[in-house]
Amino acid sequence: MNIEMIHSAAIRLQGKVRRTPLLSSPFLDEMAGRRVLVKPECLQHTGSFKYRGGYSAISAMEEKKRKKGVLAYSSGNHAQGVALAARQHNIPSAVIMPYDAPEIKIANTRALGAEVIGYDRVTERRESIGEKLANERGLTLIKPYDEPEVIAGQGTTGIEIADQAKELGITKADVLVCCGGGGLTSGIALSLAEHAPEMTVYPAEPQYFDDTARSIVRGYHVFNKNTAGSICDAILTPTPGELTFPILKRHCSKGFSVSEEEVLQTMVIAFQRLKLVIEPGGAVALATALFRPEDLTGDTLIAVASGGNVDKDVFARALSEFN
Amino acid sequence: MNIEMIHSAAIRLQGKVRRTPLLSSPFLDEMAGRRVLVKPECLQHTGSFKYRGGYSAISAMEEKKRKKGVLAYSSGNHAQGVALAARQHNIPSAVIMPYDAPEIKIANTRALGAEVIGYDRVTERRESIGEKLANERGLTLIKPYDEPEVIAGQGTTGIEIADQAKELGITKADVLVCCGGGGLTSGIALSLAEHAPEMTVYPAEPQYFDDTARSIVRGYHVFNKNTAGSICDAILTPTPGELTFPILKRHCSKGFSVSEEEVLQTMVIAFQRLKLVIEPGGAVALATALFRPEDLTGDTLIAVASGGNVDKDVFARALSEFN
Repeated sequence: MNIEMIHSAAIRLQGKVRRTPLLSSPFLDEMAGRRVLVKPECLQHTGSFKYRGGYSAISAMEEKKRKKGVLAYSSGNHAQGVALAARQHNIPSAVIMPYDAPEIKIANTRALGAEVIGYDRVTERRESIGEKLANERGLTLIKPYDEPEVIAGQGTTGIEIADQAKELGITKADVLVCCGGGGLTSGIALSLAEHAPEMTVYPAEPQYFDDTARSIVRGYHVFNKNTAGSICDAILTPTPGELTFPILKRHCSKGFSVSEEEVLQTMVIAFQRLKLVIEPGGAVALATALFRPEDLTGDTLIAVASGGNVDKDVFARALSEFN
Repeated sequence: MNIEMIHSAAIRLQGKVRRTPLLSSPFLDEMAGRRVLVKPECLQHTGSFKYRGGYSAISAMEEKKRKKGVLAYSSGNHAQGVALAARQHNIPSAVIMPYDAPEIKIANTRALGAEVIGYDRVTERRESIGEKLANERGLTLIKPYDEPEVIAGQGTTGIEIADQAKELGITKADVLVCCGGGGLTSGIALSLAEHAPEMTVYPAEPQYFDDTARSIVRGYHVFNKNTAGSICDAILTPTPGELTFPILKRHCSKGFSVSEEEVLQTMVIAFQRLKLVIEPGGAVALATALFRPEDLTGDTLIAVASGGNVDKDVFARALSEFN
């Protein structure tokens, strides 16, 4: 895993990926007491940065292998990113999803061209189903973060941040990244180490699910007590990835976590001030910028809003409960 | 009013205005039965395209006159655009707003640096207050659409549309623009006539407030029966502007109107598929693309989402009532 892989991914993604803008609002600046810039990956194809990694991985495959198709486990953003990238390559994709996944996510993944294969969470293991499928059809599994070409794709976000900040005359900043398995955070950390070495990357996580922050402090993999029970469903992982953690350890000195209330409040602020729809898991980085400014030293804070795939009722709840 | 003025405005706006992206979603394409591109001016500074016109007008003023400050009548998007542009020029701005304007809009306009001057809708005329202020302080009134430099600023949106479409290989399209007084629509029409002559511009309006569409058909100014009573508050004007109407007549063969239900439904679709917050008046163009495809002949539909300054309760209502 190195910066050359990210550069190659950027070339493959050219003309495919959406170069999301860097947004700002004087109201956010005032809250944080300094300049705040937001990289809205919720505006990316399929509504999250995951399309970058999905496209990167599929486009990097050997033609013969790729033709047979790809496989993903996920009911969320990674599935949609892989499905769209597969369709753009004219190859089949299969996504293994629990029968009880939200109808809308199943429908979306299907609409993007993937074959959705259901399983029973209680009586079946998705890995067994996936292995069987992969063997039968020759499908290649695209892991959500522990896969170098996926990390390379997510890392292209960091190149854009470095370029866009430079256009504004900014070379120094604290960069906050929503962190689950660490694919996006580690990819951005690698990119910025090369293209904006004066920027510092910090992972942001939901309260009680701060496995990455705690693992960085300890220096070894620490696990979350719970694996469910947060509205930030998109970034709940038990522990940092095998490939991502060494990168995070090298580049990040610490991490942050924010409460559910801070996340919902941030979603409302993004609605009011940026006109963006951000999902809970995609709002933890901006929540850190707005609610932990005293713990950040940079003159500029850059927050990645990593996704916008939130259900209507969750969003409406945020709007009704927070100002 | 000519294309050179738009080119000059574009130069003055460089590095100030946000070059909003062109967004798309396969789900919108499917609804309209062809390619749909959305120009999200809700992501513009102050949440609407109005910043373009405000900045253009103020930056075009003679230095000595400008220093004394500017004045606007508006409780909405134009006020915020003028206020921010004035602050960026370090000049005073005054906005005349009714006492019963929403608290949040008064607070926002103040936060952007404008002096807010209240008046009583029933017993006072804002024009009299404005004239008195202008005389006393030497302030210059910035009209919302019947002002050439304002139209020039809004027209820069059209240059971006032509450039961004060309990058996608598109030179022919039906371009739908949310239309109140016609500043944005006429500015875009002038730009496209020069930079993308195979594109056709159509104004989009709320049902029962389609003064522009009816005026185009008749060839003279027709007035709306009502001046209030639509959720599309940002684009309710009695009749097309004096300066804008001749341009609209020359470049637009007809206009479209959409119902309140279609507007609210479109806001929900933009939430789900584009992760954008669009206000009712900013959604009429996209609503036309999605709900009137049979009346449009272009292979590509480009809809301008002109603003995103919508109250939380209106947005939550749309989310709860529509799927």
